[in-house]
Amino acid sequence: MNNLKSGFSFQEKSKILLEALSNIPNFVSETFVIKYGGVAMSDETLLNAFVHNIVLLKQLGINPIIIHEGEYEINAALKMLGINNKFINDMRLTDKETMNIIEMVLCGSINKKIVQYINAAGGSAIGLCGKDGNLMKAEKIATTLKENKLSNIEKILDMGFIGKPVEINPDILFFLEESDFIPVIAPVGYGKNGETYHINAESVVGAIAIAVSASKVIIFSEGDEEINEMSNRKISVKNLNTAINNKEIKGEKLIETLMTCTRMVEECSGMAHIVDGTIPNVILELFTENNSSVSIVNDL
Amino acid sequence: MNNLKSGFSFQEKSKILLEALSNIPNFVSETFVIKYGGVAMSDETLLNAFVHNIVLLKQLGINPIIIHEGEYEINAALKMLGINNKFINDMRLTDKETMNIIEMVLCGSINKKIVQYINAAGGSAIGLCGKDGNLMKAEKIATTLKENKLSNIEKILDMGFIGKPVEINPDILFFLEESDFIPVIAPVGYGKNGETYHINAESVVGAIAIAVSASKVIIFSEGDEEINEMSNRKISVKNLNTAINNKEIKGEKLIETLMTCTRMVEECSGMAHIVDGTIPNVILELFTENNSSVSIVNDL
Amino acid sequence: MNNLKSGFSFQEKSKILLEALSNIPNFVSETFVIKYGGVAMSDETLLNAFVHNIVLLKQLGINPIIIHEGEYEINAALKMLGINNKFINDMRLTDKETMNIIEMVLCGSINKKIVQYINAAGGSAIGLCGKDGNLMKAEKIATTLKENKLSNIEKILDMGFIGKPVEINPDILFFLEESDFIPVIAPVGYGKNGETYHINAESVVGAIAIAVSASKVIIFSEGDEEINEMSNRKISVKNLNTAINNKEIKGEKLIETLMTCTRMVEECSGMAHIVDGTIPNVILELFTENNSSVSIVNDL
Amino acid sequence: MNNLKSGFSFQEKSKILLEALSNIPNFVSETFVIKYGGVAMSDETLLNAFVHNIVLLKQLGINPIIIHEGEYEINAALKMLGINNKFINDMRLTDKETMNIIEMVLCGSINKKIVQYINAAGGSAIGLCGKDGNLMKAEKIATTLKENKLSNIEKILDMGFIGKPVEINPDILFFLEESDFIPVIAPVGYGKNGETYHINAESVVGAIAIAVSASKVIIFSEGDEEINEMSNRKISVKNLNTAINNKEIKGEKLIETLMTCTRMVEECSGMAHIVDGTIPNVILELFTENNSSVSIVNDL
Amino acid sequence: MNNLKSGFSFQEKSKILLEALSNIPNFVSETFVIKYGGVAMSDETLLNAFVHNIVLLKQLGINPIIIHEGEYEINAALKMLGINNKFINDMRLTDKETMNIIEMVLCGSINKKIVQYINAAGGSAIGLCGKDGNLMKAEKIATTLKENKLSNIEKILDMGFIGKPVEINPDILFFLEESDFIPVIAPVGYGKNGETYHINAESVVGAIAIAVSASKVIIFSEGDEEINEMSNRKISVKNLNTAINNKEIKGEKLIETLMTCTRMVEECSGMAHIVDGTIPNVILELFTENNSSVSIVNDL
Amino acid sequence: MNNLKSGFSFQEKSKILLEALSNIPNFVSETFVIKYGGVAMSDETLLNAFVHNIVLLKQLGINPIIIHEGEYEINAALKMLGINNKFINDMRLTDKETMNIIEMVLCGSINKKIVQYINAAGGSAIGLCGKDGNLMKAEKIATTLKENKLSNIEKILDMGFIGKPVEINPDILFFLEESDFIPVIAPVGYGKNGETYHINAESVVGAIAIAVSASKVIIFSEGDEEINEMSNRKISVKNLNTAINNKEIKGEKLIETLMTCTRMVEECSGMAHIVDGTIPNVILELFTENNSSVSIVNDL
Repeated sequence: MNNLKSGFSFQEKSKILLEALSNIPNFVSETFVIKYGGVAMSDETLLNAFVHNIVLLKQLGINPIIIHEGEYEINAALKMLGINNKFINDMRLTDKETMNIIEMVLCGSINKKIVQYINAAGGSAIGLCGKDGNLMKAEKIATTLKENKLSNIEKILDMGFIGKPVEINPDILFFLEESDFIPVIAPVGYGKNGETYHINAESVVGAIAIAVSASKVIIFSEGDEEINEMSNRKISVKNLNTAINNKEIKGEKLIETLMTCTRMVEECSGMAHIVDGTIPNVILELFTENNSSVSIVNDL
Repeated sequence: MNNLKSGFSFQEKSKILLEALSNIPNFVSETFVIKYGGVAMSDETLLNAFVHNIVLLKQLGINPIIIHEGEYEINAALKMLGINNKFINDMRLTDKETMNIIEMVLCGSINKKIVQYINAAGGSAIGLCGKDGNLMKAEKIATTLKENKLSNIEKILDMGFIGKPVEINPDILFFLEESDFIPVIAPVGYGKNGETYHINAESVVGAIAIAVSASKVIIFSEGDEEINEMSNRKISVKNLNTAINNKEIKGEKLIETLMTCTRMVEECSGMAHIVDGTIPNVILELFTENNSSVSIVNDL
Repeated sequence: MNNLKSGFSFQEKSKILLEALSNIPNFVSETFVIKYGGVAMSDETLLNAFVHNIVLLKQLGINPIIIHEGEYEINAALKMLGINNKFINDMRLTDKETMNIIEMVLCGSINKKIVQYINAAGGSAIGLCGKDGNLMKAEKIATTLKENKLSNIEKILDMGFIGKPVEINPDILFFLEESDFIPVIAPVGYGKNGETYHINAESVVGAIAIAVSASKVIIFSEGDEEINEMSNRKISVKNLNTAINNKEIKGEKLIETLMTCTRMVEECSGMAHIVDGTIPNVILELFTENNSSVSIVNDL
Repeated sequence: MNNLKSGFSFQEKSKILLEALSNIPNFVSETFVIKYGGVAMSDETLLNAFVHNIVLLKQLGINPIIIHEGEYEINAALKMLGINNKFINDMRLTDKETMNIIEMVLCGSINKKIVQYINAAGGSAIGLCGKDGNLMKAEKIATTLKENKLSNIEKILDMGFIGKPVEINPDILFFLEESDFIPVIAPVGYGKNGETYHINAESVVGAIAIAVSASKVIIFSEGDEEINEMSNRKISVKNLNTAINNKEIKGEKLIETLMTCTRMVEECSGMAHIVDGTIPNVILELFTENNSSVSIVNDL
Repeated sequence: MNNLKSGFSFQEKSKILLEALSNIPNFVSETFVIKYGGVAMSDETLLNAFVHNIVLLKQLGINPIIIHEGEYEINAALKMLGINNKFINDMRLTDKETMNIIEMVLCGSINKKIVQYINAAGGSAIGLCGKDGNLMKAEKIATTLKENKLSNIEKILDMGFIGKPVEINPDILFFLEESDFIPVIAPVGYGKNGETYHINAESVVGAIAIAVSASKVIIFSEGDEEINEMSNRKISVKNLNTAINNKEIKGEKLIETLMTCTRMVEECSGMAHIVDGTIPNVILELFTENNSSVSIVNDL
Repeated sequence: MNNLKSGFSFQEKSKILLEALSNIPNFVSETFVIKYGGVAMSDETLLNAFVHNIVLLKQLGINPIIIHEGEYEINAALKMLGINNKFINDMRLTDKETMNIIEMVLCGSINKKIVQYINAAGGSAIGLCGKDGNLMKAEKIATTLKENKLSNIEKILDMGFIGKPVEINPDILFFLEESDFIPVIAPVGYGKNGETYHINAESVVGAIAIAVSASKVIIFSEGDEEINEMSNRKISVKNLNTAINNKEIKGEKLIETLMTCTRMVEECSGMAHIVDGTIPNVILELFTENNSSVSIVNDL
């Protein structure tokens, strides 16, 4: 009678359960800020698992805040409209017309799609961007470029409406925490003259996590090789900085992500996790001792 | 000393003030559902006056809920993309691709623009559509067409993703009532299979006003001749029905608007006002005895 | 349609309304301490306008506290009883019998009359004196008099039961703030041995305004020439002191009133207004830019 | 060591204490409406004991409401002013001038005196009349008189401003219940046209006790012979009615008092006590089994 | 990286977790009444698992109430004192001396031991018996016995202080629900004359579950063969009654337990579970689809 | 009519009442920690008076906490079981078996008996020991003994499970304060390894009184001669220390009790009273000026 159809004995099952259930009370009323995107968002199965996990977190009394990106859809829309993408230093040159398209794609299409999926999974999501409730004020970021390969002279480039967060007003997020609603945020901010900025989703995650004193930041990655190569699954801020300095960690984008994580860990005394978005239900790893993810902590 | 620069005596001023101030206590904590659009939205001066009025209402303790449309912008976007508009019985034939564009324009562009303007006027708006918080479930509406002018046979036409509200979940609106946030709603609903519908903004106003027991519905019109021709500025539901039946009121669209108003008045025991959106600050009329607007009431 | 019977265009009206309505949110939950009396109280029309204004303030969420005097009625009562009034330095020589009459007139007649008028205007007033709720402890004030016109020797005169406030217990006022009740206060205090004192109403206004951290003190004057002659309608404490020192301001009584105002302004960081009680609805001026009144502020 | 200076053994003392202390929990949060006046008010010692008892009741969590009369003082004031008292059927013919004097004496003199005494005893009283907070609306009562001793024809007499309570608004009393303030009420009401009425204090007690659902009415009597002659100290409404019908109880005024008590007992399911106001601290009898007082109860 | 030391893939683990975590929100704020005893209590390993499970339930927001028995310890104590156990119809003949011993063992030894174990596991338990907070009033139960095997005459036997619950006052349990404290209850009740009764633990479970509207009753059994033989793991009240009537279920004690369960299920619209107390962590089965336990439900 | 059957005049009675009633408001919401035992507990009449007094205190809004001992019953139980009592320095040598018996007697017999008596008197008591709610952590106390009468060498004796309080967790007591429940505590604590300790009841009183900031400690004594000989009924901590140092106070046990009292007085700024437990209702003395008790205060 003790043998389960699934092939587990109850003894085995109860071990897993004890581990997971014991973690829940620590997480109740805590806020998790999640950077969501990539294949985990475009693959229907992964998306469905994700929204069910999010609804479960909220039901357990945890407050998830989702920040999504939308590179794939933005590129498709711009292409359809015949607008050329020009990237410098990995940033898209974004004039006003482009920004209008980006805003519509992020706020009017992807954002509402995630909202709809969460709701269909039994939750109740509210789609926001940085304009709603004065959530995120931004300002232009400039990038620099060498005049030519031989030159050391750098010229500052105006990238248009690419911004960075300069002020977070978390009132609407605190307000929604008291409710059953789950905020889903598009990475779009407003400027001091009412203009609109596209902001890197990981920067938004960092800024919002700090503003709401999140206990966890969870970043969905694409199961990248660089991450899998990192030999330490759990790493302190101090050791991480050493590893970066020692060039032990590769990949510019990964390093940028890790830096966002360390800032958040230092300012919120929370933890940051870079999870493999290609694994269904990967968020549930947080309730287990599994460690496909890389965790950044203050102290080991 | 008693003569004002503005040319009013204080005696005259105080008369206006007594009238207006005395009305406020009746409105405090009440909800006004406002259908916004047309020239009142496209004209910068009128838009600026509108958002300042809305912020003022909220500061006075009134809860405005704004439902906007976006015909002009939708048409522009579809044209830019080379998508042909085909209208039958005043409704746009809306396939999935068209619906995607409409949603992006309404939810991702116009909605966030109004939010941004309200915020710039000192308020704090939250942009929503019918998907957010499961606010508005919709279903397809069909239209019928005579086979040909001579025929009496009507065929039912599938207009695509044109819908009507079938279920309002006002939780998010009640929740925001307790806050300083002002909801701005795009007329987009979700279907039972997760599909998206474009809904006539006045239908949304009617459905939401009833769901939140609004005390006022305010419909921004374009200063239409038909309205100005209506001889009664304040009219009971009963007299209105008589006038419509007697063909005393002209204009199919106006009649539809009036029908939305009477339904709301009957179900909410509130009042409905069709205001002339071309007059700056026209909302302030509600605090006065002025009557450029047509008001529909239960009993005279 | 846009022309009003009153001769105002809606454009003009809306300008006045925007100005007035915008002021209300700043005043909500604030306390106004009002010194009331003179012709504004004895003239039936002015009295009726006043009590309606007070009821309106309360309905708008403002907390008015009224302190009234009653010189005219006191004099009439004393005359009827054949009691001689003797004034020294503008103060009535007040023996115990006189004090009994004054208390009955102020607390038993005028106070209850104002209460009744406010109630008839739709409010709910509570009449108090300084004894109720231990509101105002007082002690005797002495005055000095030169022995004769040529002499420099001053003798201290016992004026009887003329007092000044020495301790305010605002508990009952804070308690009524939480309610719909409007306090109306007669300027009578109790002494440490249970004796009764008549106190100058403006002193009471000053002491109570400070005790409740009022945001406004409003003093009803009689449209006095001295006030009308003051060239500045809005004056800072600093400039006022200079003007008084430079003898630019005339009238001993006015100067005393102004001093009460400056003390209140300095201690409460509120504003003080000396309004012309002969203007009906003069309190509504506070919602406008009109300035028949003289306003004393901390900084211009 | 067990013998007390006072001559009581602790055993004796503890018996009294057990009895008294056991009664307190039943009284906490209950309201006692007290008719106060006569020698208990005019005698300094009795007055001092009374106010200390009242303060003690409030400190124990009981809500006393005091309604006082002032016959002695009214008569003195009218005499001083040379106004003739004319009584018909025990009621004073009260023209407007007389009413003014009565109101000043009741509301401006006696009421404030009791307030002051309660405060001096450590309490915090608020003096009210029927106008304050719209507490008591009244209307004229008429009396009838035989045309002459031989005639059976009665003519209706207009007694002027003698009234009876027609509507109690207990809001201010409920509001004060939540506070440390003790209401002291002068028996003066307002009429529908703003006029003022003098009302019999016992009628006020009855009307207010019913309006606030008092658990006790306590009526201070003068140690009258008629009361002492009543053979039953505790009497049911039913038996009392029988006794009155059988002419076993004498004294028209006593019978009227008893009728007020029975009405209150029947409508509030409380108890009424007619206490001997000449006994110092007589209110404390309520905590004991002593029965100098006559108690009217629903059932024995 | 995806392979766990424990031999489970994360995919397998996540399936178990999804199942378990999804159940928690349904249980939060619900009350589970647990009959505890037998080997699950005497075996140190099982006891330790049990108290950790209980602490976990409370941390997850569930309210466990434990009712324990203590047959083994009672027998040991009586034996040590040389008191003979005499059982009739499975009930111990319990005179006053025996009852004193039983009470001391249940309330003073076992109860405090479980409290101590729960506390050591990180909880905070409060040991109670039916006397505490007037929790459980009891009365004597009589049993009947045939005079001899051949006779049909039954005589009623006085079993002494063996009782059944007649009145539950759940105030203390409702009060503790609002706290972090876990009630542990010894099956001892008080009689109307203050006497003490020993009550069958399952009767206590039934009575308390009904009084607190528990959503689950959990009965620890000893892994009895009769239970394992029951072919249905989940059975409706109706089917259970049929099975009992058809003699398909054996074992008098099991049948009695099942009857207690059906009463509770019918009155609380909850579920009852008879779990195998020999399985460590068996309570966690409630979060899974495992079914070593027999569940009684209203409808299948 | 003013003469009472009990032989007191109402005047005398009212004097006692005024004194007692005036004290109550000072005590409301205060906590009294009471050491109960000896003849006051074993004598049925004294016990009944005690529990009625306790119920009365709670009804008056005071929070009594009772700590009882049980020497007499422990001795009887040990004797019945043939376990020899061996006392060294007034402490019982307590091995594990003895401790088990002591715990059962204190927690399972006496504690529940007092609970039952309080409940029968109309209260609602909850029986606790130091294990419940982690109330009292204890550790072993050692005693020392001279090797022989002539020697100065002291050896440390292990007394077994005799403990002293080292940590009070008053959560359960604060929680019960908010309720109608009266805590009754057996002097048993838990050790860091889960072991059980018997603790001197007066030490428990001291530790708990300090932890809950009691305003009074009341210690029931046996009417001992040493106490009656103390010439001062009310004594300051300072004077008491002097008296002890000067050997003016006799009796080692009394001195120990007095030391517990002074510690409590100094740490809680409350008062301690040693009352004569042989006097029925002796707790009521606290409401009077009687002084059979010895009171220790901070300052005279």
